[in-house]
Amino acid sequence: MSALGEKTPKTARGRRTLRKILDAAELEFGARGFHEASVASITGNAGVAQGTFYIYFESKEQLFGALVEDLGLRLRSYLHEAVAGAGSRIEVERRGLRSFIEFVREHGNLYRIVMECQFVDPEAFRAYFMDFADAYQEGLDRAVATGEVRAGETEGRSWALMGISLFAGLRYGIWEPERDIDPLVDGITDMIERGLCPQESRP
Amino acid sequence: MSALGEKTPKTARGRRTLRKILDAAELEFGARGFHEASVASITGNAGVAQGTFYIYFESKEQLFGALVEDLGLRLRSYLHEAVAGAGSRIEVERRGLRSFIEFVREHGNLYRIVMECQFVDPEAFRAYFMDFADAYQEGLDRAVATGEVRAGETEGRSWALMGISLFAGLRYGIWEPERDIDPLVDGITDMIERGLCPQESRP
Repeated sequence: MSALGEKTPKTARGRRTLRKILDAAELEFGARGFHEASVASITGNAGVAQGTFYIYFESKEQLFGALVEDLGLRLRSYLHEAVAGAGSRIEVERRGLRSFIEFVREHGNLYRIVMECQFVDPEAFRAYFMDFADAYQEGLDRAVATGEVRAGETEGRSWALMGISLFAGLRYGIWEPERDIDPLVDGITDMIERGLCPQESRP
Repeated sequence: MSALGEKTPKTARGRRTLRKILDAAELEFGARGFHEASVASITGNAGVAQGTFYIYFESKEQLFGALVEDLGLRLRSYLHEAVAGAGSRIEVERRGLRSFIEFVREHGNLYRIVMECQFVDPEAFRAYFMDFADAYQEGLDRAVATGEVRAGETEGRSWALMGISLFAGLRYGIWEPERDIDPLVDGITDMIERGLCPQESRP
């Protein structure tokens, strides 16, 4: 279900306006935090009238929830493109890990916003991770079905793999954005490959 | 360096007073968040005079930083005891993962407080994880030296293993505190064991 509900814009112009509001919100909430952020500043930076804002959102709270959902969707779409055409499940993991760190480097406010969501809207916070985990587990289950991944418990594994990406993103995306991530991505992917794949499939 | 600096109490009575303040702060900051929390409420619940509070802390900010450091130290001490006597590195991982989830279940406010720390005191937030990661990497390096863990890149691995615990703690410590964690801990540990250990050491 979208946080926007029935207010999802139907015209290209409406979608552009909504995009401008969400982009301005990402910067404003990221720089000032939820409580200090102001709708007036967001609409000002977006070049959108306040009246227009209220066509889409009832409140700052609702905008914040929609922004968290939007960031999650964009991240998933970014990862989806990055792993398209990967030749194996482990290549999906490697590309996914690398792209996640890249996405975090491009969206420096992502963690701040998602973490603050725990306080502003705990349900949206939980949904953000649960939705990711569900998709992850489905992917793993498919890889188990094709024999690319060893049979076994996949829920905890999915959660573990998500934790790996999130923590690698915290350190190498936010705290060390200039770091060469190739050796780290390779080292972690090697651990995941041996952890997940049948022995005989490895060189 | 301790957040308390030279104010660390030297008498048993002083240490008990400090403990009471920190325990009350854990409840107050966890329940109300940093901004809504009040020193008067913390000292009231701790049964300590406000004048006494200011012997130890200059401000609510400083108390918050000290609390984050204190939670980190208690967690590390808890994990240290839990893994003492483990017969192998992988047993350290299994017991560490399980005990971490247990600690989170006992300290329901841990995540809230540490995550809010990102906004209140970003340096303390970063130090909290960097200190953990350094200790983790040292342990892994030792296990590589004894041959219990395959040689290879250990920094990214440490960070990945920390992410696994933190995310398992979020889901199974906070969101699903009644869940039987045995199958999940086993499933994740199996992945870690295969990921880290030399092939020949596994049954």
